This record gives sequence, C-alpha cells and structure tokens, in this order.
Amino acid sequence: MHTVRFRDPAGSIRTGEWHGDSVSFADETYDLDAVDVLAPSDPTKIVCIGRNYADHAAEMDNEIPDRPLLFLKPPNAVAGHGDTVTLPAGKERIDHEAEMAVVVGEQARNVDADDAMEYVAGFTCLNDLSNRDDQRQETNWVRGKAFDNAAPMGPVLASPDEVPADAEIELRVNGETRQSSSRDHLAFSVPDLVEEITTYLTLEPGDVIATGTPAGVGPLEDGDTVEVELEGVGVLEHDVRIP
Amino acid sequence: MHTVRFRDPAGSIRTGEWHGDSVSFADETYDLDAVDVLAPSDPTKIVCIGRNYADHAAEMDNEIPDRPLLFLKPPNAVAGHGDTVTLPAGKERIDHEAEMAVVVGEQARNVDADDAMEYVAGFTCLNDLSNRDDQRQETNWVRGKAFDNAAPMGPVLASPDEVPADAEIELRVNGETRQSSSRDHLAFSVPDLVEEITTYLTLEPGDVIATGTPAGVGPLEDGDTVEVELEGVGVLEHDVRIP
Repeated sequence: MHTVRFRDPAGSIRTGEWHGDSVSFADETYDLDAVDVLAPSDPTKIVCIGRNYADHAAEMDNEIPDRPLLFLKPPNAVAGHGDTVTLPAGKERIDHEAEMAVVVGEQARNVDADDAMEYVAGFTCLNDLSNRDDQRQETNWVRGKAFDNAAPMGPVLASPDEVPADAEIELRVNGETRQSSSRDHLAFSVPDLVEEITTYLTLEPGDVIATGTPAGVGPLEDGDTVEVELEGVGVLEHDVRIP
Repeated sequence: MHTVRFRDPAGSIRTGEWHGDSVSFADETYDLDAVDVLAPSDPTKIVCIGRNYADHAAEMDNEIPDRPLLFLKPPNAVAGHGDTVTLPAGKERIDHEAEMAVVVGEQARNVDADDAMEYVAGFTCLNDLSNRDDQRQETNWVRGKAFDNAAPMGPVLASPDEVPADAEIELRVNGETRQSSSRDHLAFSVPDLVEEITTYLTLEPGDVIATGTPAGVGPLEDGDTVEVELEGVGVLEHDVRIP
C-alpha cells in the first residue's frame, strides 16, 4: 500500500491512502489539490550516506569508503511533495541528488543486518540538496547539507515488498533526465546500513536513512522543477526558488 | 530563575523550579531523589561548535577557524543530570568536553547578532562526549559525536542574566579538575553563533547550541563520575559505563 501524510482541508494531519490524483482517510476522499501533502514521516533525524554508488563517488573524485560515510540532516531539512523549496542565497552551486530513502518503522538499536528489514516501514524518494560552496569548505557538512528544506521527500511511503531489489531511480530537471540508476548499484545495502548506524545510534520510528545518490548530480537554478522517481514508489516533485 | 524538567512520581513530565535538593511544580515539592531529572529541553537538534577556544584548538593541533566549525548531535544524543551514560564499547578513547550550552526560546531564522539574545531562553551545562577512535576516521563526526547519550546536559535552565559574561566553566572527573576556563574565552560569541547558524538553519524552541570546549579534554573510564560546572547554572553530574 502507498500511504501518504497530508494536511486535510480542516488543517488536521492524517496518514491515509494515496490514489495518484486523490488521497483518502477513513471515509473521506480529497482531490490532491485540496490537501497539503507532507513528507511521509516526521523524522527526529535523517541519516544520510555519502559515496554509496561507485559512479557518483568517481564523478566527485572519490572512492567507495571502507565503511559507510555517514552525515546528518536535522528535522528543519524536511520538505514535502509539491513544495517550493527556497535554497540558500548567493551560492555558486546547489546540486540535486536523487536518493532512495528508508523510513524506519520500529525503534532500532544494535540490529543485525539479517534482521534489519523487520525495522523498515518502507521506502520513499528523497532529494539530498547539497550546497557545494559551503560543503567544500566544511569539516562537517552542516551549511552544505543541513539547511532548511534540504531534504524534500515523498510523495508516499511504499512498503518494502513494493520496491524491487533492482528498482530504477531517476531524477529529472524540467523534464530532462539528469540521473538514472538502480538500487542494485548500492555499495552498502539497506540491511548493512541499518546494522552500521544502529551500532552507534538508536533509530526512531519515522527516522529516515537516505541511501546515497548515483552519478549525474548537477546544479539547480531558480524556477527549476525537480522530479525524483523511484520504481515502486512514484514521483516526488518540487520546485526550487533561489532568492 | 532556575527551571528544571523532571518526571514526577506519577510519570508526568513537568517543568518546574529547582531548589538544589528538591524541585517543585504548581503546589507540589519533591525531594530530588523522588523524581527523574530530565535534560532541560527536548531539542530537535543540537548544533555544536568545534574549536571555539584557542587553547583547546591548540591541544588538538588546530587553529580557530575563520568561521564557526559546526557539527550536529541528533535527539538520540540527549541525556540528563544524574544519568548513567553507556558509551560505545571497544573504543580506545572517548573524551569529555565541558561546554556552555545555549537553549533556544523562540523559533529563529536569519537573526542578526544584535537581536540574537531575544531568541535565547537561557544556558545550561553540556558534556560533548567524543569518540575519538571514530571521529579521527570520519568525514562527518557521526559515530564520533552523535552516538546515543553523547550529550548529557543540565541540571537546569538558567536565564541569560544569571550567567555572567566571564562565567567560569569547569569539568571534574571523580572530583579532580580536568578543564577550567571562562566564557569570555569563546572565540565566537553566542550572538555571533546564533547569527551564523540561523543564516542556514531554523532553530526551534528547545534546540541547543553547544558552544565549544576549552583545553583539558581527556579520556573517560568505566565507572567515572563527571561533573560539569558553569557559574550561574550549577553542576551537571553523570556517571559513565563502558560495556
């Protein structure tokens, strides 16, 4: 099932069903343009993975690391499907990065990879927006990766069985394909990531793991429309505004 | 006033007054050992500052950077006064770092340094626990700094006027002084930090800025008792367990 979090016309936040051009909760159905689609969860943190596709590591003159490169996006980074995301002003280059995101279902600590999928509620699309101007200069990528709305995600939460092991992931800017790859190119798999992260941190229900981006990252301009499509999930769409 | 968050004997979370050996809420007063003292806020993120005292930067073979070095601790890092903190197992060196922490009072974005104190609820003590084994190997300090309970803080929230501009900060391990400095040695002041952080990130009420540590950081052992004392706030105490 595809579940969607949305704000209904009365302002209540609901988790309901997604029907493409409408959403429903209990016995109410709403046209998509009558509601505000929210990110599919309300995470306490987003744990992001860097350099998890060999082709992207190479385009950034890096290699796949010996163990996952971890970094963090706090809750202020969350944005949703259909939002217009305002990027930091005055930067030379802020890039898109299409990612498959894992939404955590159960509190998880010290989980073995073999058991990891029991803690996964499902998958969604995420755009790991990256302010390269500051990222290049920082020890930790806070200005570079943790700015407001740096993680649009959605539109739905798809259960794990709906997303094939070789699910295709694609990103388009104004309709033009910029990134295209498949989940089976991940260097560290979802179970491996859950095991590694929960060795150190407790993952809470709703927390998100952004699994890394394939090759083809590139800059965004004011007014661009970005789509991130993940097979089995659908299409996350958001606009970009640069003040 | 010194406010304290605590869980009362009925399990309710209260924000009340601190009287040293007792706490009160409404017309009830409880002995300190009858309640569970919690961290003074429930942050969505802790924004930490590295290398903000020249003597500590020097002891780590670093210099004060041109602009604040930022890193993040997520909510799983929070621990409170009187807690026994379990550190990651099998590490060579996990260090204490005494810090003055700022608790945010109002949602803040794009705040000028001149106005910054209007957004500050007050100050507390924080121990920025640091797993050096992993920190040394990481691009971003997640295993090194964001592990569970890596940020004990408390015991109270003191209003800004209660903490002098030259407030002394001290850390003791099993009663022995290891760090001793003063707030007026901060390279980047609290208003400067609020301005810099809110250029990129929205700070939420309860969010915390950990302002950096002075010289004298050092390793902790299983069974150690740590005290962080900040003039105008009081003493945060916690124990350490290493499995």
